[in-house]
Amino acid sequence: MTNPVTDKRWHFEDLAVGQSFTLGPETVTADAIKAFAGEFDPLPFHLDEAAASASMLGGLAASGFHTGALALRMLVEALLSNTAAMGGLGFEKLTWSRPLMAGDELAGTATIVSLRRSASNPRMGIVEIHLELRNQKGQAVMAMSLNNMIEIRHPHALVLGAAP
Amino acid sequence: MTNPVTDKRWHFEDLAVGQSFTLGPETVTADAIKAFAGEFDPLPFHLDEAAASASMLGGLAASGFHTGALALRMLVEALLSNTAAMGGLGFEKLTWSRPLMAGDELAGTATIVSLRRSASNPRMGIVEIHLELRNQKGQAVMAMSLNNMIEIRHPHALVLGAAP
Repeated sequence: MTNPVTDKRWHFEDLAVGQSFTLGPETVTADAIKAFAGEFDPLPFHLDEAAASASMLGGLAASGFHTGALALRMLVEALLSNTAAMGGLGFEKLTWSRPLMAGDELAGTATIVSLRRSASNPRMGIVEIHLELRNQKGQAVMAMSLNNMIEIRHPHALVLGAAP
Repeated sequence: MTNPVTDKRWHFEDLAVGQSFTLGPETVTADAIKAFAGEFDPLPFHLDEAAASASMLGGLAASGFHTGALALRMLVEALLSNTAAMGGLGFEKLTWSRPLMAGDELAGTATIVSLRRSASNPRMGIVEIHLELRNQKGQAVMAMSLNNMIEIRHPHALVLGAAP
């Protein structure tokens, strides 16, 4: 257990609605697309250039889950690794609006859209983070809203009548 | 382009609301958890047993995205690899209700909950698939609803007045 007073990581109290963080950029290679798809999404249009060109995607494109996982790593680097994060609860909504093609550069923005205290755990807050990812042309690729648990530094500071 | 008459893969017309498919099982190892987390979710409680034991998770647990990616591969194996799938549109909702711990066995069910034709593309249908994943104790681990595009075998068959 870290000392909440000396722990330099961001806690619930250090976050504010409207804060935003830059994600990426990162160029996505054909090899990375095939490696992820081979392990988790082995459909022909994620694995083979010829099948990909014949598909609606028009070329080798990343599994949407790969795009999501890359966005997650960007969020870890930009925010969560410096935060007393306790884990994720889920997504409210995830949409893929355009394929991420081999050679594309993925970048985006993470914005804190809500902050609330857990009703059941006084040490836990829930931060809702909206992610928007785009390609090098500025075109929207993916959006999602993630709910993450985060430690409260001083659980009882603002709670009247709380037990010591 | 495959011949829609001889193409044996399942098309839009071959699916029905209520059909369900078994996902997994697959045992998730500590090595696999660390490998995924190292690449996409490098937080201490997904990488290190000691940090994991000290966390709310109580032990090494898979990144929620890893669980999602495993569910995706199970869905590809159980359904999408045999289907004229055109790609995913997104999730309506994804929730992680319990961590997937090292050594846990992940399994689940995919159920078709809705089928509709695209308003803009007569060759495309949209299938909504609800996934429920559980551990070897039968406890819920993750749920999500995925919208996937799928080819229509006979685009004009049921559309009165469609162009030839």
